[in-house]
Amino acid sequence: MTHHEATHRSADMEECIRNCTECHAICVETIAYCARVGGKHAEAQHLSLLATCADICRTSADAMLRGSRVHGYVCGACAAVCSACADACSAMRDDPEMARCAEACRRCARSCEEMARGM
Amino acid sequence: MTHHEATHRSADMEECIRNCTECHAICVETIAYCARVGGKHAEAQHLSLLATCADICRTSADAMLRGSRVHGYVCGACAAVCSACADACSAMRDDPEMARCAEACRRCARSCEEMARGM
Amino acid sequence: MTHHEATHRSADMEECIRNCTECHAICVETIAYCARVGGKHAEAQHLSLLATCADICRTSADAMLRGSRVHGYVCGACAAVCSACADACSAMRDDPEMARCAEACRRCARSCEEMARGM
Amino acid sequence: MTHHEATHRSADMEECIRNCTECHAICVETIAYCARVGGKHAEAQHLSLLATCADICRTSADAMLRGSRVHGYVCGACAAVCSACADACSAMRDDPEMARCAEACRRCARSCEEMARGM
Repeated sequence: MTHHEATHRSADMEECIRNCTECHAICVETIAYCARVGGKHAEAQHLSLLATCADICRTSADAMLRGSRVHGYVCGACAAVCSACADACSAMRDDPEMARCAEACRRCARSCEEMARGM
Repeated sequence: MTHHEATHRSADMEECIRNCTECHAICVETIAYCARVGGKHAEAQHLSLLATCADICRTSADAMLRGSRVHGYVCGACAAVCSACADACSAMRDDPEMARCAEACRRCARSCEEMARGM
Repeated sequence: MTHHEATHRSADMEECIRNCTECHAICVETIAYCARVGGKHAEAQHLSLLATCADICRTSADAMLRGSRVHGYVCGACAAVCSACADACSAMRDDPEMARCAEACRRCARSCEEMARGM
Repeated sequence: MTHHEATHRSADMEECIRNCTECHAICVETIAYCARVGGKHAEAQHLSLLATCADICRTSADAMLRGSRVHGYVCGACAAVCSACADACSAMRDDPEMARCAEACRRCARSCEEMARGM
């Protein structure tokens, strides 16, 4: 989506941007879904975790999109928050919406960890 | 990317979310590009316009992703800012990076206008 | 907080930035509060409205902070979303947390409307 | 500004939220200022660093405002990015605008570090 000649980003970074962008969107959708379902899904800490995950994914994607050299710090935090969010969503795994969110968070955590290490 | 069963969004809204997400990303990239190129590209008002465009596109995409009923107000503002940004980028049309940004802004403006009308 | 010599913003705009910044923060807090309280407070549309209100307030404050000439479009949308959010929170007025949020939204809506008109 | 009965945040966290909110605002202003001044101020990496600093400060403030337990990860990244931004701005210290931004970044880095440690 966002590839263009002038940027010269690695394929890994391109994939990380995609993963962060998707994880952001899925977390925003999942908050709304959890609020509709209620109960354990809508516990305050769970919604807060999803919201912080959405925010850090966006910050991380944008740091890479603008080629900022400090992106590794943001990616490191993004990996940690995404892992926590994946764990929380996995605990509701029988719900396919939560499994979908857990998967997106796990994928994003993996590529952000690599970015943080490579900094 | 973000389609899932529980949401029941129209195809038009799905497309608008995609356009906003892409326009956000391209504006963030274009700011960095313009800062590298310098000169007219890097004028303060141009960079500010691109940054505000990136922000409102993100706000607009997220309002639709979470199914917020007030999304039309945000989409209306997004259409106006994207049109202004498309005009500014079109004025540097001989530069393919700017033509690419103008195109993304124009596409986003069109679908946001429709969303704002349909509210 | 954010005044400095080089900017030359009007007193009205300074106040609008403060109101948007405060309304953003209070909406983010109120989402967490509503999720803890549950029931009518935590209905999906109410949480979505608060989240969109938080986002557009931030976008609006930042557009003014960077002196973007298109801030009026964003302020116009911000006024509309804040008014809707104030109405929703006022409906739970016996709860002082919601009255506090309604008041912040109303104040932000008023100053954003002025900014939108003055554009 | 954002204190209310229902939250029970420590005084240190309240101060950290204030520092992040102020640093976000000052970074957004400083980007616009640097773009107006041009030259070394407007180098692409400097503008990118300021923009990423603004984003992570906002994400950090919001994580604390909503009482998210993972705020420490975000605060840790915020401290690192703010320190880098303070260094970059300090290098242009003879300019009072840059000294002001460096000071806000330094103050934010210090309180975010404490939050990250205390997690």
